[in-house]
Amino acid sequence: MVDRVVRVLEAFDPDTPVLTVSALAARAGLPLSTTSRLVDQLVGHGLLGRDSARRVRIGVRMWELASRASPTLGLRSAAMPFLEDLHAVVGHHVQLGVLEQREVLFVERLSAPGAVINLTQIAGRLPLHASSGGLILLAHAPSDLQEAVLAGPLRGYTDRTITDARTLRRTLAQVRTQGFVHCPGHIHPDAAGVAVPVRDRSDAVVAALAVVVPNDDRALGTVPLLRAMARGIQASIGPIEWN
Amino acid sequence: MVDRVVRVLEAFDPDTPVLTVSALAARAGLPLSTTSRLVDQLVGHGLLGRDSARRVRIGVRMWELASRASPTLGLRSAAMPFLEDLHAVVGHHVQLGVLEQREVLFVERLSAPGAVINLTQIAGRLPLHASSGGLILLAHAPSDLQEAVLAGPLRGYTDRTITDARTLRRTLAQVRTQGFVHCPGHIHPDAAGVAVPVRDRSDAVVAALAVVVPNDDRALGTVPLLRAMARGIQASIGPIEWN
Repeated sequence: MVDRVVRVLEAFDPDTPVLTVSALAARAGLPLSTTSRLVDQLVGHGLLGRDSARRVRIGVRMWELASRASPTLGLRSAAMPFLEDLHAVVGHHVQLGVLEQREVLFVERLSAPGAVINLTQIAGRLPLHASSGGLILLAHAPSDLQEAVLAGPLRGYTDRTITDARTLRRTLAQVRTQGFVHCPGHIHPDAAGVAVPVRDRSDAVVAALAVVVPNDDRALGTVPLLRAMARGIQASIGPIEWN
Repeated sequence: MVDRVVRVLEAFDPDTPVLTVSALAARAGLPLSTTSRLVDQLVGHGLLGRDSARRVRIGVRMWELASRASPTLGLRSAAMPFLEDLHAVVGHHVQLGVLEQREVLFVERLSAPGAVINLTQIAGRLPLHASSGGLILLAHAPSDLQEAVLAGPLRGYTDRTITDARTLRRTLAQVRTQGFVHCPGHIHPDAAGVAVPVRDRSDAVVAALAVVVPNDDRALGTVPLLRAMARGIQASIGPIEWN
């Protein structure tokens, strides 16, 4: 039963936030009658909402329950003043990502109108090998996760994406030595990602702080500022319990 | 069964984000064995997480599912650049709230270190009659909700909180005429809330934009800026489907 609830909730994503019950049943791989009954119950509890055309979406109550005790809330609160300052100076996109399974999950993003193209969404994910935040997190991840990612496949977004294991292994070593990563055109030719690790009080890497800026020779100039902001977040971070 | 899942999820809040299974069972009003089995399943799906001491909390996956297709995400994205500008100028606290059942639910908050005291939390709630954002939302709510709130009880936080129905009714009428509300010391003697309505493209009020600042004679000076920012949000807001 919990399994069915999860399949219903997983059917919604940023591209399909609103579904008819029959589309929902198809996406969740459940019989229409089961889906319909489950939707009624979930709507009753506010975990799903229904619009005037009886289409279904995630409910405000679901967001509230997930957010008010979210394990990422402490990190986000500590980081937010620094993200704002960073965004005021750099513009474009500023984002904070954490390692979740084999991807980077973005827990916060600030974007300016008219900023350079960026595929990231709040609560969206990107592969570890392709994004600047992902490379930071992978470089500091347990070695079994690193080996699993190195074993591939390594999907290419552009001809600059790192898609071979040797280059990836060398890049991860570099990231650990340099303390930052610069990804010019790795996901889109016009954009560059630049990221640094965010550490907690015990110096463990808990997040990646990244900017996505135009892919030109000013991108690397953001590194000193990113580092200073990451130090600021570390100083104001409370104890975090992950997992 | 959905009912039990909801009771488990509702047991977590900002003050108790981490619980032992037995404390969780007590808060959810469920037998220990049932709770234990349910927790195992929810942890398996990532909706709950478990720390090294086997205590339980909301899982990152739960936050992700709730957030990536959240009905508040469009509003928040449209508002965020304006919240940042407002915060840069006013400092202290800037917050965005929506009407959820009989309370104001805060979907975003930006706070400066060292800002004036503020009871608001992201995904937290306040009563409609007591907070500046709540008064804005209540003033534009359906009349049956207004009457239900006016019927009381109206809890007082300070001796400035509006706790009688006649004053509340007069205040709501004023809010509709003036287009803003000023709440000096209504929740804490040292803080003032100032709020304006945020409208969507059809001019329906969908949110309240508020600042919480020191309770002095500069608080009212934020009104023109709040109004300008609310207009900016309205211009960049997409179609929103609530509920």
